[in-house]
Amino acid sequence: MSKVKIFLDEKDMPRAWYNIQADMPNLPKPALHPGTKQPAGPDDLSPIFPMGLIMQEATTERWVEIPDEVMEIYKLWRPSPLFRARRLEKALDTPAKIYYKYEGVSPAGSHKLNTSVPQVYYNKIEGIKRLATETGAGQWGIALSQACNFFGLECTVYMVKVSFQQKPYRRTMMETFGAEMFASPSENTNTGRAILKKDPNSPGSLGMAISEAVEDAAGREDTNYSLGSVLNHVILHQTVIGLEAKKQLEMVDEYPDVVIACCGGGSNFGGTAFPFAYDKITKGTKVRLIATEPSACPTLTRGTQGYDFGDVAGFTPLLWMHSLGKDFMPPSIHAGGLRYHGVSPLVSQIVKDGIAEARAYGQTAVFESAILFAKCEGTIPAPESSHAIHGAIEEALAAKAAGEAKTILFNLSGHGLLDLPSYEAYLAKKLIDFPLPEESLKKSLANLPQV
Amino acid sequence: MSKVKIFLDEKDMPRAWYNIQADMPNLPKPALHPGTKQPAGPDDLSPIFPMGLIMQEATTERWVEIPDEVMEIYKLWRPSPLFRARRLEKALDTPAKIYYKYEGVSPAGSHKLNTSVPQVYYNKIEGIKRLATETGAGQWGIALSQACNFFGLECTVYMVKVSFQQKPYRRTMMETFGAEMFASPSENTNTGRAILKKDPNSPGSLGMAISEAVEDAAGREDTNYSLGSVLNHVILHQTVIGLEAKKQLEMVDEYPDVVIACCGGGSNFGGTAFPFAYDKITKGTKVRLIATEPSACPTLTRGTQGYDFGDVAGFTPLLWMHSLGKDFMPPSIHAGGLRYHGVSPLVSQIVKDGIAEARAYGQTAVFESAILFAKCEGTIPAPESSHAIHGAIEEALAAKAAGEAKTILFNLSGHGLLDLPSYEAYLAKKLIDFPLPEESLKKSLANLPQV
Repeated sequence: MSKVKIFLDEKDMPRAWYNIQADMPNLPKPALHPGTKQPAGPDDLSPIFPMGLIMQEATTERWVEIPDEVMEIYKLWRPSPLFRARRLEKALDTPAKIYYKYEGVSPAGSHKLNTSVPQVYYNKIEGIKRLATETGAGQWGIALSQACNFFGLECTVYMVKVSFQQKPYRRTMMETFGAEMFASPSENTNTGRAILKKDPNSPGSLGMAISEAVEDAAGREDTNYSLGSVLNHVILHQTVIGLEAKKQLEMVDEYPDVVIACCGGGSNFGGTAFPFAYDKITKGTKVRLIATEPSACPTLTRGTQGYDFGDVAGFTPLLWMHSLGKDFMPPSIHAGGLRYHGVSPLVSQIVKDGIAEARAYGQTAVFESAILFAKCEGTIPAPESSHAIHGAIEEALAAKAAGEAKTILFNLSGHGLLDLPSYEAYLAKKLIDFPLPEESLKKSLANLPQV
Repeated sequence: MSKVKIFLDEKDMPRAWYNIQADMPNLPKPALHPGTKQPAGPDDLSPIFPMGLIMQEATTERWVEIPDEVMEIYKLWRPSPLFRARRLEKALDTPAKIYYKYEGVSPAGSHKLNTSVPQVYYNKIEGIKRLATETGAGQWGIALSQACNFFGLECTVYMVKVSFQQKPYRRTMMETFGAEMFASPSENTNTGRAILKKDPNSPGSLGMAISEAVEDAAGREDTNYSLGSVLNHVILHQTVIGLEAKKQLEMVDEYPDVVIACCGGGSNFGGTAFPFAYDKITKGTKVRLIATEPSACPTLTRGTQGYDFGDVAGFTPLLWMHSLGKDFMPPSIHAGGLRYHGVSPLVSQIVKDGIAEARAYGQTAVFESAILFAKCEGTIPAPESSHAIHGAIEEALAAKAAGEAKTILFNLSGHGLLDLPSYEAYLAKKLIDFPLPEESLKKSLANLPQV
């Protein structure tokens, strides 16, 4: 009988994160201050980020050591397992081997905890007592509230009001770990009060919630802000995924022909693919790196690389990235974590330079693949992660058509147990493919900031 | 830095289940036919169970080989990890070492899949095409629907109507794996129709749902019935838990002083504790085995051993067990899986003979322990499993008081991600301790069947 799971021993866990800035043929242009439009320096970021993370944002050191205190928490669930999806291979009748790294074993249920833990750690050692953040569907808020709990920091989460009301399970989970929760827009900030004055029934948006969290953090000496994707230090922390997967594949004498991960803000894709991009850039290793995204929010496949704000209000530094324009309003797909107008500048540049490629899928096809995966492997995948599953299935079927025994690796970034209402909608045939709102895209692209 | 997780390699998985019937000083009295009150033979059970399972029910062979087909499915999540709860130890400031086996890694989220997989397998090889079962909160229904999906059998689940309406996440999960669902009482059986005729708004009960599933199975040649606990073959399958845990503890040169598991129908407790009871009975090893149950449904601590029916209607064979009486209506505690009037005859006898002991806890104390555990270890535990956590904490604090460095093992039988509304109730201080309904208990005990 064949082996299904490949476990790495705790003693073989990576002791350093991989920083692709050391090896990229072209670095993205620097982030700009939103007011002066000059390159943003450490001082511009220090009111809301600790210096430890600001330094990681800019460093070009290839390896950044993981602190012992972070390693101790990582060990609660890391190394995460690597599975061979034998039953899925059989169902597809493909000669391809399909491996998946599974980040849903984290107590947060997703890869997000890989970065919330070091983020809280670096804040703690600089004396910060409290972190503020925003969350949409709730994955990031759960991860940050858990990490704050582990290190004894307070955590305040501005959760988009419509999600706050519709996703009580995720809200309760944050509260269980001690987070203080506000439905955003809230009465707790000037931004929130101003919005509520205009529209007391505002359902909220991620853009509004970011503004509230940043205002909260900027206004209190003991408080910083924390972001769950996009920035360089977030991608850096997530490289534990790809580094572990490489070691696990080595244990069974494999190296992937294709590496696939879904892409919203980019930390999951970067974290999975960059350790393989390292081989590709520095050793010329042949490996395809595929970022999969929703066709209703096709940042990498339809956006253009340029300067744009990270948030809707235009408070953040200008980032050099693929963007659909901050005013683009993505349709309400179930993969809430992939509904972002921009993407990590590092991921953007790697795609721009042809080191990685991107593909976009409609959500009904993605859910079909999710259910096939669940029926074969048992695990209910998150809607976001299911974009990677769909990409892997596409590749496995292409290998079958070509008669090639390829090795495919994808990252299953989270489970879908708190997303079961989305499955209910799919099973009831109430889930539809949203066409891309071309007019809205045209307008938002025309409205990109002039730099 | 110390090791937190102990993984067993797939090649070291147990290849046989342990059958305590081979070693018990006293076997429980035989099950009786509900009509004749004579010992029930294989022919009495064959209309609804396959012969493979009927034989396991009665065998006194010590080891029962696990079929290859079952091993292949087990490998999707087994061996399950053993954790050392170092952060919990620290929080309790105890000299005790606390280890926990974690069964929540199964795709069903609980230990129930350990038995649903072999149950479906033995039905399949005897030509059965479809299984019918009941489910209360939904854990067992999920496990059986997944196992049927893996082996290509149809699955029909009668889910207690009030749960069907209040637990849409669990219902959707069963539907995702292809189960046909009925809210019980349903129009699909004579039993259901009769109940609905009397009371069209009946909320249903586990007793009614069992009757519907048994009627369904008995009425169709291609269909059998499946039960998720209580019976000997179910306990047998669950011994993979304790067998693996023993090997994992050996890997770190440990043997437990105390083994703790929660107890409803008894399969989780038996599965965890019996491989250690083997050492205790056959080698005189000193190890305490503690079954923890809710004080609102204290089967082992307040029930009496004798013959009783497994279901409310009195359709099942009479089982020799601790029972609160089939008419006892337990208060609506959140640990739905522990709301059962009876218990496995094997567990009952082991407790009766003093090989294991039992303790009962109120639910607010249990939830307090659950939240402490979640904050230390990250994982949100199921309300049922939290009874084991509470027992482990009690033992760890006793060790602290006595200044003894004990080794405690407990089984965390499932995660609580689909039980978050119970946590919400606790956090909102809406969760209360139900007093034991003494009058109801007195009546139901007085009403035990005369044999």
